[in-house]
Amino acid sequence: MEALKRKIREEGTILSPSVIKVDAFLNHCIEPSFMQEIGEVFADKFNNEPVTKIITLESSGIAPATMTGLILGVPVIFLRKQKSLTMQNNLLTATVYSYTKQTENTISIAEKYLSEKDHVLIIDDLLANGEALQGMVDIVQKSDASLAGCGVVIEKAFQAGGKSLRQRNIRVEALASIASLENDTITFTEQEATH
Amino acid sequence: MEALKRKIREEGTILSPSVIKVDAFLNHCIEPSFMQEIGEVFADKFNNEPVTKIITLESSGIAPATMTGLILGVPVIFLRKQKSLTMQNNLLTATVYSYTKQTENTISIAEKYLSEKDHVLIIDDLLANGEALQGMVDIVQKSDASLAGCGVVIEKAFQAGGKSLRQRNIRVEALASIASLENDTITFTEQEATH
Repeated sequence: MEALKRKIREEGTILSPSVIKVDAFLNHCIEPSFMQEIGEVFADKFNNEPVTKIITLESSGIAPATMTGLILGVPVIFLRKQKSLTMQNNLLTATVYSYTKQTENTISIAEKYLSEKDHVLIIDDLLANGEALQGMVDIVQKSDASLAGCGVVIEKAFQAGGKSLRQRNIRVEALASIASLENDTITFTEQEATH
Repeated sequence: MEALKRKIREEGTILSPSVIKVDAFLNHCIEPSFMQEIGEVFADKFNNEPVTKIITLESSGIAPATMTGLILGVPVIFLRKQKSLTMQNNLLTATVYSYTKQTENTISIAEKYLSEKDHVLIIDDLLANGEALQGMVDIVQKSDASLAGCGVVIEKAFQAGGKSLRQRNIRVEALASIASLENDTITFTEQEATH
């Protein structure tokens, strides 16, 4: 997605050879019309799949997931990282380690929202080590729903998450795939990552 | 907003005389087209204000804020409840106690996103004791931006938050205002809360 690559180049900040800050358009400040474009591209990539539900993980996945759901006409469920007073029982859970926050979280979804009739698209903002996506895949598998695949806004292809998911035969679509952040330079992979 | 009141009646679950669970359409599972309707109503209510930015607090405010921002054509900044590795410095912060999670959080925004040129609309999912909104109002005031007001999807009018904000002459618009949850019955206020 060229408009996304341009934003990454113009507004992303390389903090280290493995970390790029994209708060300006993805993780903190968002431009809703750009999120709508992102939703259109995800919807287009997965339009050959009979998706019935989208799941994402709070918080940065919610805007792109909601826009994708608007176009596909399906509900979006955002998984929680912390238990709330109103969500205590009848949950499907998985354990996820966050490298950026250096914490381990139990992510959860009310089990009633996923059944064997569902075909689930997972949307998230960033794919690096893949912990969040793996956790969401685990939850889909525990629910007996089928998995359409994973759509991520940005993949850091030099980290192991995407490879590990694809080796499990899980379809992963990244709208921008970063090959390297070495030498304070953003290098995109030649071709956007597909199945 | 009649469609919202219908959803609250049909899909809300009263857990106690002070707590209603609205995970089915607001806090966990969302229907993007309904969020779009919510965005349209907020945009309509605040269309007399020259809003330049919307702020909200992760996570349940993100979807309605994004849809409102799409219609108003303004950026949305979602405030963080936890510090991330990529957001450590140059922050405006406030302390917020969450009754539903029984935790105290320091909410934060990168200070560069708000200036004295901004006219800010605050959007959130629920207004009860008003801690989250008060925290966001504090942050807007620290930033020297002006405040258009607060839009909340559901106000629990029997709790103190809305009254306290309005006493400070802050405009608070609720799309549905619940007068009482006593006797396992949802009673809405006669008129939707306005300024």
